[in-house]
Amino acid sequence: MDFTLTILGTASAMPMVDRFQSAQVLSVHGRFFLIDSGEGVQRQLLKYHIPMQRIDSVFLSHIHGDHVFGLFPWLSTLGMQKRNTPLNIYAPASFQPMLKFFLSYFGQGVDFEIRHHPLTMKEPQTVYETKSLEVKAFPLNHKIETFGFLFREKDPGMNIIKEKIAEYGLGIEEIGRIKKGEDIVRDGKVIPNGELAFRRREPRSYAYCSDTAPFPQLPQWVRGVDLLYHEATYTEEFSGQAAERFHSTARQAAMCASQAGAGRLVVGHYSSRCRDIAAIQEECRQVFPESVAASDGDVFEI
Amino acid sequence: MDFTLTILGTASAMPMVDRFQSAQVLSVHGRFFLIDSGEGVQRQLLKYHIPMQRIDSVFLSHIHGDHVFGLFPWLSTLGMQKRNTPLNIYAPASFQPMLKFFLSYFGQGVDFEIRHHPLTMKEPQTVYETKSLEVKAFPLNHKIETFGFLFREKDPGMNIIKEKIAEYGLGIEEIGRIKKGEDIVRDGKVIPNGELAFRRREPRSYAYCSDTAPFPQLPQWVRGVDLLYHEATYTEEFSGQAAERFHSTARQAAMCASQAGAGRLVVGHYSSRCRDIAAIQEECRQVFPESVAASDGDVFEI
Repeated sequence: MDFTLTILGTASAMPMVDRFQSAQVLSVHGRFFLIDSGEGVQRQLLKYHIPMQRIDSVFLSHIHGDHVFGLFPWLSTLGMQKRNTPLNIYAPASFQPMLKFFLSYFGQGVDFEIRHHPLTMKEPQTVYETKSLEVKAFPLNHKIETFGFLFREKDPGMNIIKEKIAEYGLGIEEIGRIKKGEDIVRDGKVIPNGELAFRRREPRSYAYCSDTAPFPQLPQWVRGVDLLYHEATYTEEFSGQAAERFHSTARQAAMCASQAGAGRLVVGHYSSRCRDIAAIQEECRQVFPESVAASDGDVFEI
Repeated sequence: MDFTLTILGTASAMPMVDRFQSAQVLSVHGRFFLIDSGEGVQRQLLKYHIPMQRIDSVFLSHIHGDHVFGLFPWLSTLGMQKRNTPLNIYAPASFQPMLKFFLSYFGQGVDFEIRHHPLTMKEPQTVYETKSLEVKAFPLNHKIETFGFLFREKDPGMNIIKEKIAEYGLGIEEIGRIKKGEDIVRDGKVIPNGELAFRRREPRSYAYCSDTAPFPQLPQWVRGVDLLYHEATYTEEFSGQAAERFHSTARQAAMCASQAGAGRLVVGHYSSRCRDIAAIQEECRQVFPESVAASDGDVFEI
């Protein structure tokens, strides 16, 4: 059961030759989710062998060019490829007129349905749900309306230890109760659930937080996340600029991971002034050792 | 005196990993002209060390995504770089509302003047002129309104052969007349201009013709051009598709070069179905030997 993050772009607003702008793909149980769409995202999807047509939803954090300019060229391509399944786009309300304008100019051939789900929440709210996955969106602290996303598997439930079925002569009704975590009674004695069943695995989770300045609620909102992506536009040397532009330093990203009790931290969205990625990673690790400064093409299994 | 073409993208509508979409830079006498702006053009400008801020004019052939999607991200970047000189954009009239919409959404920081010069001509017409260069635009034969461009140096004039000044005791007024190509008279004898002066060089020229199906006027309109760029989306194998989509085959591009008496032909804008560039080049050379099938980054001195 895959739960895999592929980083497609790690540059911020100023373009770089060796890094594309913000875009990622998360694959969960065979479904593909595109998170932000910096310029050239379709090229990166090709390069890293992501099956474009299987992307069923896009999550756009905010409507700054370096996070959205790649979306429209990609939509055109999906049209040329004769996509016929709907595409869901979770994006701020201000995305709607932009989509409408794009379709009015370049919409010929874009014959699949594009469903824009406007984001307006002031605190975490479920925006996407399947039997096995839930996605929450929550506001970030940036110059314009911006949202983060938390992807969390639902509890995969308990598995019966097969030998126990014969040992205790378990019936179907009892097995059902055991899978829900209950104990059973045999000969007046309680057999604890832990002896009969095991949890397949802990539900896995991933959070995307870009672009944002630090704010107190964020670590609570992503508490216990297995993998946290947090922007780290600057090193501490540029903390003034980070504050002025509602961005974070590497240290601030690591503080968030630490306060959230995250499993691992991955950072990106580097300023063109901070090209020494090793320095960014080192600054993170001083606060939160399980940190990685990502490059385009990096893959993280969760 | 530079007259240099740098190819930034050679793919057509369907994206490829190893080729960007249509974009070129022509530098003439220290001025830089951007011709078309496929997605990722700013990245290619960086990669091939073109000084972005020195581009004073953009020529857009038509408003299909693979020729314009890179323009707006690049305009954003020019804004971030605090450009303060005007940028001229020669583009079809339908570009105007698109520019307006872009500026209304992403225009914050784009503080330089953008002058859109709408193209509407039905036959070749001068759209840009300096002391040493003239650019003509002319209609092409594509699905939507599309224009080609012919960049031609003005006649650089005659240079006096220095030794002749002393030999014939030439005065300033006479030198002026000789530079205009006139003969002089000495002792009742005509001294022909060719003995007194030489042409610095023939005026150089470059034509951009993409996207277009063949049409009778085109070879006349680019007659004698030194370097002709002509799209060659397909090989002859796909001539039906080329016709249906108002594109050209490699053979048709070469026929145009041959009929125009061009010096050299360079082709690009390859379909994702025609990835064998050697085959495209070979098909051109069978008709017009001085043909090159370009790749991104190729540079042609004219």
